[in-house]
Amino acid sequence: FVQELDMKIEELEKSGYEHFMLKEIHQQPETVADCMRGRLSHESPYIRLGGVEEYDKTITNARRFIIAACGTSWHAGLIGEYLFEDLARIPVEVEYASELRYRNPIIQEGDVVIALSQSGETADTLAALEMAKAKGAMIYGVVNVVGSSISRLTDAGSYIHAGPEIGVASTKAFTGQVVLLTMMAISLGYKRGRIPNSYFHKLITELQNIPGKIEKVLQHEEQIKYIANEIKDRHNALYLGRGFNFPVALEGALKLKEISYIHAEGYPAAEMKHGPIALIDEEMPVIVIATNKSAYEKIVSNIQEVKARKGMVIAVVTEGDEAISKMADYTIEIPDTEEPLTPLLSVIPLQLLSYHIAVMRGCNVDQPRNLAKSVTVE
Amino acid sequence: FVQELDMKIEELEKSGYEHFMLKEIHQQPETVADCMRGRLSHESPYIRLGGVEEYDKTITNARRFIIAACGTSWHAGLIGEYLFEDLARIPVEVEYASELRYRNPIIQEGDVVIALSQSGETADTLAALEMAKAKGAMIYGVVNVVGSSISRLTDAGSYIHAGPEIGVASTKAFTGQVVLLTMMAISLGYKRGRIPNSYFHKLITELQNIPGKIEKVLQHEEQIKYIANEIKDRHNALYLGRGFNFPVALEGALKLKEISYIHAEGYPAAEMKHGPIALIDEEMPVIVIATNKSAYEKIVSNIQEVKARKGMVIAVVTEGDEAISKMADYTIEIPDTEEPLTPLLSVIPLQLLSYHIAVMRGCNVDQPRNLAKSVTVE
Repeated sequence: FVQELDMKIEELEKSGYEHFMLKEIHQQPETVADCMRGRLSHESPYIRLGGVEEYDKTITNARRFIIAACGTSWHAGLIGEYLFEDLARIPVEVEYASELRYRNPIIQEGDVVIALSQSGETADTLAALEMAKAKGAMIYGVVNVVGSSISRLTDAGSYIHAGPEIGVASTKAFTGQVVLLTMMAISLGYKRGRIPNSYFHKLITELQNIPGKIEKVLQHEEQIKYIANEIKDRHNALYLGRGFNFPVALEGALKLKEISYIHAEGYPAAEMKHGPIALIDEEMPVIVIATNKSAYEKIVSNIQEVKARKGMVIAVVTEGDEAISKMADYTIEIPDTEEPLTPLLSVIPLQLLSYHIAVMRGCNVDQPRNLAKSVTVE
Repeated sequence: FVQELDMKIEELEKSGYEHFMLKEIHQQPETVADCMRGRLSHESPYIRLGGVEEYDKTITNARRFIIAACGTSWHAGLIGEYLFEDLARIPVEVEYASELRYRNPIIQEGDVVIALSQSGETADTLAALEMAKAKGAMIYGVVNVVGSSISRLTDAGSYIHAGPEIGVASTKAFTGQVVLLTMMAISLGYKRGRIPNSYFHKLITELQNIPGKIEKVLQHEEQIKYIANEIKDRHNALYLGRGFNFPVALEGALKLKEISYIHAEGYPAAEMKHGPIALIDEEMPVIVIATNKSAYEKIVSNIQEVKARKGMVIAVVTEGDEAISKMADYTIEIPDTEEPLTPLLSVIPLQLLSYHIAVMRGCNVDQPRNLAKSVTVE
């Protein structure tokens, strides 16, 4: 009887979705909005992350950020690097926590360490932070689980308010981390005089439009399911992106690996010519995130190179894109937005693609083999 | 007749080896020695890289190094990061040249840009350097081909003196770049007072022993060939390493990709638990570089995790290692050396492994499909 009741509760918790992962993907319009709630407005305009007042000056005047994380959080951290460097002009070093902790890292005056972890319990990240703290660094935590070990260890921090994430493959925590880092970067850029008023206003307005735009991307689910069916029996896949969307390529590949056991790998698009292009033949699907306005021509030429080797191209493009639609085998459109915000939209179809491929392959989506939700061993 | 003569010359140039790549792998005891020749001695002791006198102070007092490169050179750059941070305590940022050039990078006073390129003609690296130069950075080049475009653009630099590299998959240029960066890091560490006299002396002595030790690794070729035969029909492979050997894992994977078209991917060993471990089953060979003295226990536990999922483990270990030999399916021994110098030895068996796998698969080793020796398009 107890067993039966548990199942019912679980079903209820899935709110009608077949898996937690699917529910969590579809929650993202809400969770992204929750992460922004009360923290910004385009009216004054302002961005204000609570709980950092005491360290506000330290963060604003940081000479360098060191972002420590693992797995999906590490990908969010890489997007953070592009955001902080582009918008706030603060140099960023993104480190695998497991590497950072074992190599006596250089932490200098003015360095601020930012830790990213959904659970707040990731063992390697915790150990890296303890070491950075011992070296006198200020530690800023970006976590989801309230009261977790990392949130207790840090000097200051922000919760991403994504709610419980049950699926082992992280989705809404990822977009939560990215939106949090985006707010930090915009705010810092403004305070440091690197962003003019008008752009500050524009970015906030666009950020507030993101939940609605995620909703629009989710409406392409049937089309994404169709594409999933076309590539579900492949053994390998490559994901390519440039700039802000390079880390999204890594994240898209990781999602596919985690839940479908297809060997997918992400690359900065231009690196393809330095090796991975040798892998491309008619058996290799290549997922290209091609929404960048900057370097658009370059990504077009990357797609041509893949097609010339008979690879199958699935391109994520901006609504209304015609050039790429003519070349790619399949395209998925996302709404237009400011370039630094595109990862929040471009990752959504990749999450859905992985999900549907895994379901079609009969994989246990919410509890993939060999993986734990939070890695509390070293 | 002309054709016939050409062939003979090519045969002669291969010095009896079946392919240029194999010849170049076997040349490494010489080419590494050539790169060091006249530049160091354990007797005084000293390390002196010519052609930098004018910029010596700028480099010694650098606040940060930004290393720009593509492909295999990018992996050498990552080893450079570990070397400079560990030995000279100078923070390093390693960038894909193709990413750096499109993102208005932050270049501050005291930043020195180091460019790595075998050919000295890599289009993305050249473009990144031009941009960094326009921003006022000092540029240091590490190239192989004398008089190449990059060597002409830089303010100062060092040739790696590896001789012409014909095989498309870079081998001796990689070890040349690594030994050059190692000399730079040791020299800087000493000048900056971060390395005591005794360790300076020890590192130089050990560096001079590297060519002889590479020779010893090359003697394991028959055993490596045997292992190659065991994994030649696999479709995928993972390469794992930690610390100085994490970039070697990336490089080992790239070599296999380039010439055998097997989808191989490198990872820092601890990241495996954050996703890639889902890929592991009896079909997946995992090549682990397990020579680290630091974090040895951790790498042992990574191997146990792979074995628990029935993965096949090929471990590169230090001579006399017993613990790992008992767990791994196959081990390849390399001589003991100082930890910062291990990449110069641990990469050698991975080069040979890729070579023999590719030959067994009937691939065109020296001219793999889709790849060019130097990537002069963007």
